[in-house]
Amino acid sequence: MAPVTNACYRFISHPVGYPDPLKNFQYDTSRTIDPDEVDLKGGFLTQTQFLSIDPFMRGRLDAGTFQCWELGQMFEGFGISEVIRSDVPEFQEGDILYGFQPFEHYTLHTKYEARGKMWRVIHNYEDLPLSVYLGAAGMPGKTGYYGMKHIGNPKAGENIFVSTAAGPVGQMVCQLAKAWGLKVLGSTGSDEKVQFLREELGIDQAFNYKTSSIAEEVKKFGGLDIFWDNVGGETLDIALKNMNVKGRIIVCGHISTYNGEEAYGIKNIWDMVYKEVKMEGLHVTTLESQYGDEFYATVPKMIAEGKLKYKEDVTIGLENAGDVLVKVLKGQNAGKAILQMWP
Amino acid sequence: MAPVTNACYRFISHPVGYPDPLKNFQYDTSRTIDPDEVDLKGGFLTQTQFLSIDPFMRGRLDAGTFQCWELGQMFEGFGISEVIRSDVPEFQEGDILYGFQPFEHYTLHTKYEARGKMWRVIHNYEDLPLSVYLGAAGMPGKTGYYGMKHIGNPKAGENIFVSTAAGPVGQMVCQLAKAWGLKVLGSTGSDEKVQFLREELGIDQAFNYKTSSIAEEVKKFGGLDIFWDNVGGETLDIALKNMNVKGRIIVCGHISTYNGEEAYGIKNIWDMVYKEVKMEGLHVTTLESQYGDEFYATVPKMIAEGKLKYKEDVTIGLENAGDVLVKVLKGQNAGKAILQMWP
Repeated sequence: MAPVTNACYRFISHPVGYPDPLKNFQYDTSRTIDPDEVDLKGGFLTQTQFLSIDPFMRGRLDAGTFQCWELGQMFEGFGISEVIRSDVPEFQEGDILYGFQPFEHYTLHTKYEARGKMWRVIHNYEDLPLSVYLGAAGMPGKTGYYGMKHIGNPKAGENIFVSTAAGPVGQMVCQLAKAWGLKVLGSTGSDEKVQFLREELGIDQAFNYKTSSIAEEVKKFGGLDIFWDNVGGETLDIALKNMNVKGRIIVCGHISTYNGEEAYGIKNIWDMVYKEVKMEGLHVTTLESQYGDEFYATVPKMIAEGKLKYKEDVTIGLENAGDVLVKVLKGQNAGKAILQMWP
Repeated sequence: MAPVTNACYRFISHPVGYPDPLKNFQYDTSRTIDPDEVDLKGGFLTQTQFLSIDPFMRGRLDAGTFQCWELGQMFEGFGISEVIRSDVPEFQEGDILYGFQPFEHYTLHTKYEARGKMWRVIHNYEDLPLSVYLGAAGMPGKTGYYGMKHIGNPKAGENIFVSTAAGPVGQMVCQLAKAWGLKVLGSTGSDEKVQFLREELGIDQAFNYKTSSIAEEVKKFGGLDIFWDNVGGETLDIALKNMNVKGRIIVCGHISTYNGEEAYGIKNIWDMVYKEVKMEGLHVTTLESQYGDEFYATVPKMIAEGKLKYKEDVTIGLENAGDVLVKVLKGQNAGKAILQMWP
């Protein structure tokens, strides 16, 4: 095989507010690779199949933040790739891998990277579309599952309020909570999504936070045993006021402040004391070793059986990564945002 | 014995800002009791010896708050009392009791109250002054001990930042942390207290938050594994920015907002996510059954051996309860604030 273009997607300048893909990012087609001949250096070569676009990426674009990207570097995110050639015993040609990877068509994994990063072979016994392993059976699904198990500690009959309930993580949390016997309130940003939450996912109450009073909706629902915090800001402050004794708050995302909006000041921390409320930050990656095997043994099966529903919004072409990220940050995607590499 | 005055201290109107004892409280000497003759109704009678004045009382003075007091009712707080007469098998005449009680000279405990409330006989094997059982060996000491055990989960070599470090709870936390091998930073409100923390308690670094930059002091100290939050507000926000991965925050008090100051809005909740920080409200009472016996077996002994130092600020006379509370709220007391009933 002759050398082929190895396109990649780079971060080249810091955005102010929402990113401007034309200005802040670059689709770079200047590199080539010969998949048959390239020296594996004791590692392995993968061809990217699907990449996941997620809100956390916005946090990587600001200078000086934790895990911020350097100017000029490739985007990084969760992806599904196929092993093309391998010099490591763990992976064989044709294996489908899930892992955190650069945004490029072909990736050469050196020996160190092969072992140092968490790659997982996706066996896909249930014959699901592979993109599902980036959504309901991927990072967002894991986030919901690990967070509920590790921090939420849910008990049947308890009340949970899920913010950004129609997002990939929120959907997972809502459906797991229903499956485990909780009463679920969800907030989301459009009437269509409210309808989806009620009718498709069957949660107990849902509202459009853009047209309803969050405080009134939460009050109507009743005291909260668990709050799944995807947004921060005023919603978190209202939840703090409405927690039950020994309530748990899973701090998962703060999409309300990702794009440079001035942070809303949380005023109700004091309520945590009397009520012995626990609030804990969730970082899915470090929980992988504890919950990963259980997740892959449980969730793909539940998806195949129709017990966990999901929605995808697939865009073809790596060059569209930035546009899809902006869509995600503005809440305009119609399901888990997936980039498909090849038509 | 003829009837004697049974003085009590009442809450009669809501303060705005700091309480005004002349206006908001009332020392009531209108009631009498005959300790020898009063009908015990199956309960027991105690004579109050010492009462504890604590910051949490400020929270009871606002209408509509959790556990707020009703207008006209007696103050309630932790006290040390002696059993005068008893019809319950648990307590004998002469027993010294620790418990949560009304602010009055004599208290008649009905049968229900005798069992329904948590009274503990103080054996005082170490022959400590009884007032110590309201401070280092009482609620503030328990708060420090239970909070460190239950939420702090301290490990030798870790860094802890203690706010209001020279207060009764803070002193306990600082000394336990040192005893357990942690590196301790303390903040307090005067240079004398800074000196006390450094020289008497031997903590590693201490600063006067009124004359130093909290942010710079914390930065100089290094990343925090544990933050003991007695104040909330800006200090909490700075701590959130400086937590280490898997850091723990014990939310114990928010003295910065007890007196009607507008709540400072916390902006750094987002930092909890990446760093998997846990923040939990501490309510000492509900941890009593879990840690109480261990506490009484450990702490009075450590005090007697000089391993835990304490300072008291004793005022004689129930009529001074309000003045002492204001002193405590303004940080003008020179040690654990104790009211001694009898000269």
